[in-house]
Amino acid sequence: MAERWNARERIVYAAAQSVRERGVSGTALRDVVERARAPRGSLQHYFPGGKDQLITEAIAWSADYAASTVTGYLDSTERPTPGGLLAAMARGWQREFGARGFDRGCPLVAAAADVAGPEPELRATINAAFEAWQEPLRAALRDMGLPARRARSLTTVMISALEGAIVLARTRQDVGPLRDVVRELGPLLDAAVDG
Amino acid sequence: MAERWNARERIVYAAAQSVRERGVSGTALRDVVERARAPRGSLQHYFPGGKDQLITEAIAWSADYAASTVTGYLDSTERPTPGGLLAAMARGWQREFGARGFDRGCPLVAAAADVAGPEPELRATINAAFEAWQEPLRAALRDMGLPARRARSLTTVMISALEGAIVLARTRQDVGPLRDVVRELGPLLDAAVDG
Repeated sequence: MAERWNARERIVYAAAQSVRERGVSGTALRDVVERARAPRGSLQHYFPGGKDQLITEAIAWSADYAASTVTGYLDSTERPTPGGLLAAMARGWQREFGARGFDRGCPLVAAAADVAGPEPELRATINAAFEAWQEPLRAALRDMGLPARRARSLTTVMISALEGAIVLARTRQDVGPLRDVVRELGPLLDAAVDG
Repeated sequence: MAERWNARERIVYAAAQSVRERGVSGTALRDVVERARAPRGSLQHYFPGGKDQLITEAIAWSADYAASTVTGYLDSTERPTPGGLLAAMARGWQREFGARGFDRGCPLVAAAADVAGPEPELRATINAAFEAWQEPLRAALRDMGLPARRARSLTTVMISALEGAIVLARTRQDVGPLRDVVRELGPLLDAAVDG
């Protein structure tokens, strides 16, 4: 799909992939441009704000992608459930690890790990990205019958457990942690609707 | 307490703190030595293997610290419960964020974020560190009455949810995610013992 994108889009995508592998500090602009098969000058042309602008856009792109996993599940499922939604999000990661190995984690966690402390503006950008993912998730849980407060806290639990399991899966090189989280939390989430 | 440590110990501790703030790629040896109030030459003296050796030791130090939060809870509690153990681990983080702000996250997650992909040896070190934390946690859950398999998968859930909530708390600058995870998962964990 990256083939049809223009140079600007390819650069944002390549930056997001680099952050997933190496964090923000480890991301070199030269590598990003090469990875995007973009002309050297295009970086200055499209991103006059430099690395900060590029990372900001890569994080926003990642948030859109994460949110699309929620809407994708809702659009493709007759009777959506909270446990089914968690399983669908985890399945995306299991597929990714199966197809491409464990080198790339979540870009939001990677960015938070090295810039949330020292760079307040990027920290706010990462927070907005997590919000943009959590908002459709909360709305989905409310639509499934959960009261607003419970939808909010279970959204936190779903995202937290998923993100932690991604880290464990990568370090262990095994999708087991994702399976554990889905198996243990699915019934809890579904019971919250029925209860 | 860092006052009584020798230069070598102070350097390992300072490296762990830097990884917590900036990841491995963002950690500069010069800053670590300064932070540790150690003589410039001490780095080469104590860590002839350079940055990789220092980071490896900082990760191992972090694993010991994480494991000590488990034994600390068990030693100080008359009737330990899985939910109580999760709450105790979360409380450590809430105290840390309350006392020192949100600049420092978990060193294992930070290291995984930027080196688990590109550096296989450090990836294995991080994995061993997570194992050294999970092993006493699994043993504790078994001692509380959980079958081995369930102790294993609920350990994964506890660590995953805690780690994810730490990331969300840092980006949001609010300990709410830690509270949500404890409130939602505590009853699930305790029911696993009673059930």
